[in-house]
Amino acid sequence: MNTVRLYGHHESGNCLKALWTAQYLGLDFEWVEVDIFAGASRTDEFLALNPAGQVPVLERADGRTLAQSNAILTYLAEGSDLIPADPFDRAKMMEWLFWEQYSHEPNIAVRRSQLKFHARRADDLDPQLLARGRRALGVMEMRLLAREFFVAEQLTLADIALVAYTRVAHEGGFDLNDFPAVQGWVRRVESALGLPHAADHAMVG
Amino acid sequence: MNTVRLYGHHESGNCLKALWTAQYLGLDFEWVEVDIFAGASRTDEFLALNPAGQVPVLERADGRTLAQSNAILTYLAEGSDLIPADPFDRAKMMEWLFWEQYSHEPNIAVRRSQLKFHARRADDLDPQLLARGRRALGVMEMRLLAREFFVAEQLTLADIALVAYTRVAHEGGFDLNDFPAVQGWVRRVESALGLPHAADHAMVG
Repeated sequence: MNTVRLYGHHESGNCLKALWTAQYLGLDFEWVEVDIFAGASRTDEFLALNPAGQVPVLERADGRTLAQSNAILTYLAEGSDLIPADPFDRAKMMEWLFWEQYSHEPNIAVRRSQLKFHARRADDLDPQLLARGRRALGVMEMRLLAREFFVAEQLTLADIALVAYTRVAHEGGFDLNDFPAVQGWVRRVESALGLPHAADHAMVG
Repeated sequence: MNTVRLYGHHESGNCLKALWTAQYLGLDFEWVEVDIFAGASRTDEFLALNPAGQVPVLERADGRTLAQSNAILTYLAEGSDLIPADPFDRAKMMEWLFWEQYSHEPNIAVRRSQLKFHARRADDLDPQLLARGRRALGVMEMRLLAREFFVAEQLTLADIALVAYTRVAHEGGFDLNDFPAVQGWVRRVESALGLPHAADHAMVG
């Protein structure tokens, strides 16, 4: 793979997933910080990269672009040990990637974003965000009770995608102390990726 | 692949995607109808298959199970011409599969479900569902202005996943006459899959 450009924001879990994957695999890439809070993802220049106005975006040397964080991960990790070789294990990894975007991110990341970046008070938020986010963490807890990683007993894209917003879930008012297996898994994945322990912070909300 | 069981409901686009893919590829499979409106996805037996209580679920002959419609598609179509051989085309296909579950299904399928299956009146629904659903159809319209199919100039899983709820979008109160390129594409994909033209029905809502 030739050098790719990754456009992202350093506080966005969806963007960090892509950064961590590229770093973990030692890929040749360039990070372009996009100040989404200053409107930089709404400029004509950026919209030419992604009409949806969302980060992350991957841009290849030939100018072709790719959006959707988890699609970017599968592209970056193609042929690496972050994607299991066994077809069924690979499908299970995909299951967790789709679940992350459908049942985890829209609740946990959205609640965190409201509290942390939009100065909303917890009382003013849709209570479903907390309930659904806790349910998502409960699903993860069940999965991790007897497993070190989500799929195939190895670090895969499923772990990288899920850890991005789980490790900062406290910023969304979710208490990971209620989910000890998740807590242990977060530390394992953080260690594997060479990240500091994000949960060593106070709760918000 | 040995015989697989597909658990699903015949009115659920997420389930029909899996059915159509298995049929198109001529796979050896068994369809198990789950009467989700009568609570059949909440029984202990079903929750053992999928703790999330959602259809579709794929069950292999060895008892292992797979959830998340688009993960099931990638498993069923592994190695077939429904997945482009080129890595970047494959990644673009994944981009649309993730986009479908994040920006299309939660608006278009949810609004259809509220109107068709839960007897809700259009006036009582979250107005964001209509606005976001129309925005999703607009994104598809732009993509299809100069293309026959979403990716790689061939029928792929991206088309099958996206057509499932787009062809019945009128049941959610979305008028496809406003999106002529989408309308033409729906007919192409329906033809390729051997389906009747679902849009030859009255609008709802």
